[in-house]
Amino acid sequence: MPTGNKDDWQPIGRARAYEQVLEQIEERILDGRLAAGDHLPSEREFAATLGISRPSIREALRVIEALGIVQIKRGAGRDSGAVLVSSPGDGLMNLLKLQIALATFSWDDVLNTRMALEIWCVEEAAWRADKTDHAELTEILDRMDAPEIDSAEFNRLDAAFHVRIAESTGNALTAHFMGSLRTAIHHQMVKMYAELEDWRETAKTVRAEHRAILEAVVSGDRHLAADRMRRHIADFYDIATFERADPARP
Amino acid sequence: MPTGNKDDWQPIGRARAYEQVLEQIEERILDGRLAAGDHLPSEREFAATLGISRPSIREALRVIEALGIVQIKRGAGRDSGAVLVSSPGDGLMNLLKLQIALATFSWDDVLNTRMALEIWCVEEAAWRADKTDHAELTEILDRMDAPEIDSAEFNRLDAAFHVRIAESTGNALTAHFMGSLRTAIHHQMVKMYAELEDWRETAKTVRAEHRAILEAVVSGDRHLAADRMRRHIADFYDIATFERADPARP
Repeated sequence: MPTGNKDDWQPIGRARAYEQVLEQIEERILDGRLAAGDHLPSEREFAATLGISRPSIREALRVIEALGIVQIKRGAGRDSGAVLVSSPGDGLMNLLKLQIALATFSWDDVLNTRMALEIWCVEEAAWRADKTDHAELTEILDRMDAPEIDSAEFNRLDAAFHVRIAESTGNALTAHFMGSLRTAIHHQMVKMYAELEDWRETAKTVRAEHRAILEAVVSGDRHLAADRMRRHIADFYDIATFERADPARP
Repeated sequence: MPTGNKDDWQPIGRARAYEQVLEQIEERILDGRLAAGDHLPSEREFAATLGISRPSIREALRVIEALGIVQIKRGAGRDSGAVLVSSPGDGLMNLLKLQIALATFSWDDVLNTRMALEIWCVEEAAWRADKTDHAELTEILDRMDAPEIDSAEFNRLDAAFHVRIAESTGNALTAHFMGSLRTAIHHQMVKMYAELEDWRETAKTVRAEHRAILEAVVSGDRHLAADRMRRHIADFYDIATFERADPARP
């Protein structure tokens, strides 16, 4: 479908050439002519083939790079250029982070969506998690027990525990949703911790609840795991007074 | 934080100026200095303030436009330029569509995620949907009953029914996830219909199942609604032989 026929294209700035470049790339991905691991043409080749300017090509490449669809490797070697990737990047997280900051979604909606995803994940994890999952989850909790831990590291490990549970479902898309959403609100979570009167007191509760959730996962009790996760998330947001403040709007 | 100090910037093509422009925009959105409805500076002003080239500014704008964070209005009037928006656009859908096409996520993962989201949504809808929701859902199903309907229109309305249920939850984020995922697989759904021996036979089953789901939603029976949705989705994928083919890879 890409042709060198300039008649197919309208002047840049009006029909927006970069969008048409994007459409052609998308079409080829969707119909299978382009697959993960494939190189896109170089900017120079691309511009010559499509008969449009290199800046327009570059704009299209930036967009799919930001979405995490391609990785762009610098240099002049055979492996340089834009390569299609099949591992999910930060695109979704960046999108959610900005949308939450812009109040596209209310904080309540974010929490309720998180709740629904977490409960589904922990139920699935109780069903599917294997010994490696159990061991890695335990290791995260052990590290959260370190007496000299600071609140930033505690928070990072807290997120890691929840994301690792999502990964134990074996469902990469749900895990990616959950992980992206959790990372997108990381800023607000850190802020909530910072505003706690005594984060070390809260940390004790969080530690005990995490252990109880893991215990339910290891014993394979879906309902217990779901109940404990529900209470854990609701508890934390109660403590952190999400009723009184909307941390997405500082 | 943005300064006119060129020493903060590295040459274009190495440190990638557009990423630094993006970071500054993100930072201002996240800390609340920029909010929905605000205009970004014009390309010219932006380039002058940051001391970088207009093409780099444009690349950054293209990225946030593709993510649906800004709308760019052409022209020279007061309302022209890049405006931050708070309604979710096609960013997530485009991202998912490409990721599914690139096999970032398996078809099984997509179906199971869809199942989890749909069940949660229909449970919430049974709890929260009001008379307007019921009336609009009924109207969609009535239009699906039109005897002369073709499979493309049937499919479009099918998607509309599921998305409208998600919207009845009152949770904009979950509805957006669900709607984006459903639209992202629209291509595969159409293909599945096209491959059915007799789509009008299948349509009869789909119609009856939709009515039964709506009935459970209207009567406020969460468990019945969830059961019927689960069976409806599983049935369709069984009929459409998703066990035998991976429609994401044509």
